[in-house]
Amino acid sequence: MRCEIVAVGTELLLGQIVDTNSSWIGEQLALAGIDCLRHTAVGDNRDRMLDAFRGALERSDALIVTGGLGPTQDDITRSVIAELMGAELVRDESLVARIEAVFGGRGRSMPANNLLQADVPVGARPIEQMPGTAPGLVCPIGAEPGVDGDDSPKVVYAVPGVPWEMRQMVEGTILPDLKRRAGISSVIRSRTLRTWGHSESGLAEDLADEIDRLDREGGVTIAFLASGMEGLKVRLTAKAATAEAAEALLADEEARVRAIAGEIVFGVDDQTMESVVLDLLVERGLTLATAESLTGGMIGTRLTEVPGASRAFVGSVVAYDGAVKRDLLGVPADVHVVSEEAVSAMAAGVCAHLGADVSVAVTGVAGPDPQDGIEPGTVWMATCVDGAVEAWRTRWPFDRTRIRQFTVITVLDALRRRLLARPVG
Amino acid sequence: MRCEIVAVGTELLLGQIVDTNSSWIGEQLALAGIDCLRHTAVGDNRDRMLDAFRGALERSDALIVTGGLGPTQDDITRSVIAELMGAELVRDESLVARIEAVFGGRGRSMPANNLLQADVPVGARPIEQMPGTAPGLVCPIGAEPGVDGDDSPKVVYAVPGVPWEMRQMVEGTILPDLKRRAGISSVIRSRTLRTWGHSESGLAEDLADEIDRLDREGGVTIAFLASGMEGLKVRLTAKAATAEAAEALLADEEARVRAIAGEIVFGVDDQTMESVVLDLLVERGLTLATAESLTGGMIGTRLTEVPGASRAFVGSVVAYDGAVKRDLLGVPADVHVVSEEAVSAMAAGVCAHLGADVSVAVTGVAGPDPQDGIEPGTVWMATCVDGAVEAWRTRWPFDRTRIRQFTVITVLDALRRRLLARPVG
Repeated sequence: MRCEIVAVGTELLLGQIVDTNSSWIGEQLALAGIDCLRHTAVGDNRDRMLDAFRGALERSDALIVTGGLGPTQDDITRSVIAELMGAELVRDESLVARIEAVFGGRGRSMPANNLLQADVPVGARPIEQMPGTAPGLVCPIGAEPGVDGDDSPKVVYAVPGVPWEMRQMVEGTILPDLKRRAGISSVIRSRTLRTWGHSESGLAEDLADEIDRLDREGGVTIAFLASGMEGLKVRLTAKAATAEAAEALLADEEARVRAIAGEIVFGVDDQTMESVVLDLLVERGLTLATAESLTGGMIGTRLTEVPGASRAFVGSVVAYDGAVKRDLLGVPADVHVVSEEAVSAMAAGVCAHLGADVSVAVTGVAGPDPQDGIEPGTVWMATCVDGAVEAWRTRWPFDRTRIRQFTVITVLDALRRRLLARPVG
Repeated sequence: MRCEIVAVGTELLLGQIVDTNSSWIGEQLALAGIDCLRHTAVGDNRDRMLDAFRGALERSDALIVTGGLGPTQDDITRSVIAELMGAELVRDESLVARIEAVFGGRGRSMPANNLLQADVPVGARPIEQMPGTAPGLVCPIGAEPGVDGDDSPKVVYAVPGVPWEMRQMVEGTILPDLKRRAGISSVIRSRTLRTWGHSESGLAEDLADEIDRLDREGGVTIAFLASGMEGLKVRLTAKAATAEAAEALLADEEARVRAIAGEIVFGVDDQTMESVVLDLLVERGLTLATAESLTGGMIGTRLTEVPGASRAFVGSVVAYDGAVKRDLLGVPADVHVVSEEAVSAMAAGVCAHLGADVSVAVTGVAGPDPQDGIEPGTVWMATCVDGAVEAWRTRWPFDRTRIRQFTVITVLDALRRRLLARPVG
C-alpha cells in the first residue's frame, strides 16, 4: 500500500502558512506501517490540482488531500475530485442537517454558501467524524460497476485543512481504512521516554548494546529526538498482533531502557519536566518558589502552563535588577550578582520571602554582550530543599534564547533529582 | 517564469521534521514576483527524486532543490542532478580547498567523506555563498552546445536543507538569477505594521476604502495576518522600478494606514510590543515592574527576551498563591484575588515593593476549571503610571494558553498607550 499526500492552498505556496498537516499525517502513516512516497502542495487551481491528484494516483494506491473543503468559491477540492471520478456532485441531505446542527449549536444561523459543503460526488461517502462544519470524504477510484467502493483499486480521502478537524478524520476513518485495504492486521504502538542530562550521542552509546539486541530480535525500535527545553526524547515503537501485545513489548522495553539510562529518564509521553516536578512536590506536601534573574520569569511561566500548578507553586521573585536581588532576596552588597554567593542567597531568600518549602534560583549572563567581563552563557543555578542550598555553575555555548531555555530545564531537573532522593511525607 | 520547489529527505515524509524551507522560499519567490506552482517532498531515493525533478521541469522553468547535499551516502542530490543533466560529476579543487578551510577554521580535521561535497556536474557551477560545508549548485538544463549556461532554457538550483545555509544562497544567488532570467527589473519591498486592539475584520472594514483605492491605482497591496500574541500584522508590499521608489511608496502607504488605524499600530517589522514598551520607558527614564498571577511570569519572560531589557525592567513578583498577593503586594484580606481591588493593589504594591516607576498587573482564571464560580477567561488587568492605577476586566473566550498570551500583549498595550500620552522627560 503506497500513499501520497496533497495539500491544497495557494497560501501554502506563498509561504503564508507552513504545512504542518502533511508532516503529522506522514508520521501517522509511518506508525501505521503504510509507505508514504510524496508530499505535494498545490494552489487552489483546478487544472493544477487535477494534475497533482492524477500524478499521485498513477504512482500510489491512496491519496490524502487536505484543504479546499470550505464554503468559499476558492474551495474546489470537492468538485475537482468529482471530475477525477467522472461523477456528479449531489447534495447529501443528511449532511445538510448535520451542518445546520453545528451552526445551530453555536447559536449562529448558517450562511447559504455552507450548503455547498454538503455536496458529495456520486460513489463517495462522507467521513463519519465531523468536528467542524466541513465534511470529509472517502472517494473510491476505479471500482468496477457492482463492486463495493470499499474494495476499489485506489482511493482518495479529502479532509479539511484545519488541523484538529483533519486529525480526527485521519485517526477515526482514514488510518483504519488504509490498514484494512493494505491487509495490515498488526498493531503499532509507541511510547516516548523523556530524558535530560545526557547528550544524544552519549545516550546512543550507552544504549548501543540494547539497540543491537533489538536489531537482531526485532519487535521494538528505538529512535532519538533532541527537543530543546522539552528534553532528549527516546521513542520506543512496538509492532505486534494485538494492542495488548504491543503494550507489553513497550512496558518490557521501557524497563530495560530505564535500567540502563537510570535517573536521566524524567517522564513518559506527555509528561513535562514541569509537570513531573509539580507532582513530586504535591506527593511530598511541599511548596515551591523561584528566584529568577536571566530567565526573567520563564521558570514560573513554564510551571504555570500546567493546570493545577497552584497545588505546589506559590510564586516567584524575578530580580532582574541588582537592587531587587539585594533588597528582596538578601544578596549581600559585596558579592557579584552572577556568583555562587548570589545564587545561593537568592535560593534561600525566596523561600523566606514567599514562605515556600523549596526553591530554584538562577542568575547569569544571557548575552549577547558580556557583563562585567563575564561571558554570555555563564549561569549560576541553585536549589534549596529543607533549607539546604546546592549551587553550581554552567557555561552554555548557545544564543540568548537557548541559554535561557536550557537553564530552565536544567535547574528544574536538579530539583527533581533532589526531590526523588527525599522520602515522601 | 514558473518555479517549483522539491525538498529531499525521508525524514520529511516520516514527519520527523516539518518542511519550513519550502514555505520560506515560497514567500521569497512571491515577493520577487516569481510564480511558484508546486512544493514537493520526496525521500532520499534515486528513482523517486529523478521522477520528481523531471516532473517539475516539465511543468516549470526553474526548480529549487533543498537537502541531500551532505557528506553521507544518503545524500544523493548531486548525483541525481548529474544524471538529470546527463553529465559527469567532477571534483572541483577550489571547492575542496574551501571545504577544508571551513573545517580548519573550526579547528577540526575534515572527514574524507566531505570531499564528495566538492563534486560538481559538468556544466554546473557552485553557488558563491557557502556558509556551511555544503556547496550549493546552479545547474543549467537544456542549453545548446556553445550557449552560455546562464541563458539555458531551464535551470535547477540545489541548496542544503540547513535553513540558515539555504537562506543565504537563495538571497545571494538564486533570487537574483531567477529575476535576471525572468527579465524582472522591478523591485519588490514589504513592510509590516504591527497592530493590537482591533479584529481582522474590523480593521479590514476601516481600511476598505484605502484597499479599494490601491486596487484601482496599484503600486502597493495590503494583506492581514493574525499572529496571536505577536498582534495582527498588516503587510504592505510595493513594486517599483528601484528600491528607492518602492521604499517611498511604502513610506507613503504607512502614513496613510497610520492615519486611518491610529494608535492601534504599535510597531513596524521586527519591533515587538515588548521592545516598543521598553523603548518608551527608556525614552522617559522610567523603570517597570510586573505583578503577575495567571501569567505566572510570562510578561517578565517576554520583556527579558529583548536584549537590553535591564535598561528599564527591574523585575516581577509572581504572586500565584493568594497569600503572596496579600503579604507582598498588599492585596487586602477581605477582597477576592480576582477583582478590581486585588489587581489595583497588585499594580501599586509591586511599584512600592520593587521600587519601580510604573507597573502592569494581572490576575484571573486561566482554566480549564472555574475558580470560586468565576469562569475561565475572566481576567483583571491594571497599569500604574506615576502612582495612578487604571484597572479593567476582560473575558477571553479562549483556552488556557491563549488566555495567558492575549493577556500579556493586552496589558502591555495598555501601558504603551499611557506612556505615549505621557510627555517624554
